[in-house]
Amino acid sequence: MAQNMMLYWSSGSPPCWRLMIALEEKKLQGYKHKHLCFDKKEHQCEEVKALNPRVQLPTFKHGDLVVNESFAACLYLESAFKSQGARLIPEDPAEQALVYQRMFETDNLQQKMYDVAYYEWFVPEGERHESALKRNKETLVAELKLWDGYLEKMGKGSFLAGKDFTMADVVCFPVIAYFPRFHCPKEKCPRLMEYYEMVKDRPSIKASWPPHWLENPEGPDTLKNL
Amino acid sequence: MAQNMMLYWSSGSPPCWRLMIALEEKKLQGYKHKHLCFDKKEHQCEEVKALNPRVQLPTFKHGDLVVNESFAACLYLESAFKSQGARLIPEDPAEQALVYQRMFETDNLQQKMYDVAYYEWFVPEGERHESALKRNKETLVAELKLWDGYLEKMGKGSFLAGKDFTMADVVCFPVIAYFPRFHCPKEKCPRLMEYYEMVKDRPSIKASWPPHWLENPEGPDTLKNL
Repeated sequence: MAQNMMLYWSSGSPPCWRLMIALEEKKLQGYKHKHLCFDKKEHQCEEVKALNPRVQLPTFKHGDLVVNESFAACLYLESAFKSQGARLIPEDPAEQALVYQRMFETDNLQQKMYDVAYYEWFVPEGERHESALKRNKETLVAELKLWDGYLEKMGKGSFLAGKDFTMADVVCFPVIAYFPRFHCPKEKCPRLMEYYEMVKDRPSIKASWPPHWLENPEGPDTLKNL
Repeated sequence: MAQNMMLYWSSGSPPCWRLMIALEEKKLQGYKHKHLCFDKKEHQCEEVKALNPRVQLPTFKHGDLVVNESFAACLYLESAFKSQGARLIPEDPAEQALVYQRMFETDNLQQKMYDVAYYEWFVPEGERHESALKRNKETLVAELKLWDGYLEKMGKGSFLAGKDFTMADVVCFPVIAYFPRFHCPKEKCPRLMEYYEMVKDRPSIKASWPPHWLENPEGPDTLKNL
């Protein structure tokens, strides 16, 4: 089944990584893939352009179906391979509620992390303001506190939506992993860092760990002064 | 069942509106609700703060379950009331693929619309740049062209993910409705405007139409020069 899949991805991109975790969890190893370097603009190749009008990664194809949005692809895989590998969305709608809620809250954490860590990437030189970056940092610290509070409330050893690893963890872990990677002070989110330590060696996550993070385990200290 | 639900919402907010359309489609009329004026900061009330740490709207509760993210709430309602009202996500995973893809692409259109229409709302006075607003406009025009192309390819009378009204329409219509509302020139997205005309009188959409749009049918010309 997986031989019928093609993934274009870049190392460390949270949207790519979450899809790769989902593929591992659903036991879809063996999919075809192409690693493209974002910095070298390799993602702007004709193959990607033909499948993805936004020319973004991930670009994902299963047979004739193209599903490029990472949340869409994760939900699609869970539905198409419901009884294969890990069950990532529980059967009971009442349990689904929290899984969905945390899944879509992830966009907040991801965007706020980008707004700090990639401020210079996204904002052209002449348009940058210290006041904006300062505000972005405050917003990110508040967001981290929120997630830390969720974990604190759920208790030690909990995943993001309860006692089981779910789609909430699949989509959010790649964002959370940026905080230790970028030297965010542990005291900004101690529970989140415990969660990171607990989850980082899960087989699906280890198997999809960004190759350039393996090559350079010591990341930049972008978030050192958060 | 719906009497067990409580929605805090504001008029015209796309995230609130999509949840209200989903409630209508799933025949969940009769839910309790409270209309809060965003401009008057009524959403910062204690009731919302108690349920939603981001103090945003929608804030939504069903029994003891709190699901505030609009995409999460829509998916939850579809799952919890699968056989009630309209079926918004098809059974077949192959058909789901496009529904999910368009659903999550909506974030692109929404954010790019906000980045133009609400530029002054989001960016403090001292940090505004003509160059940024110009770039945001170009990005929005390209995004509109993309959606217009999707509809062009699907053919006249098509919904966003095919011949049926689906969750893709539920989540995206409230964003699309901003373009005619804000006087966006029709030639920027002719197929999208045909789609708007086709869908705007659907009962679920009419029933949830923003009250302040009804009171003032002539919206501001914010997107006149897009």
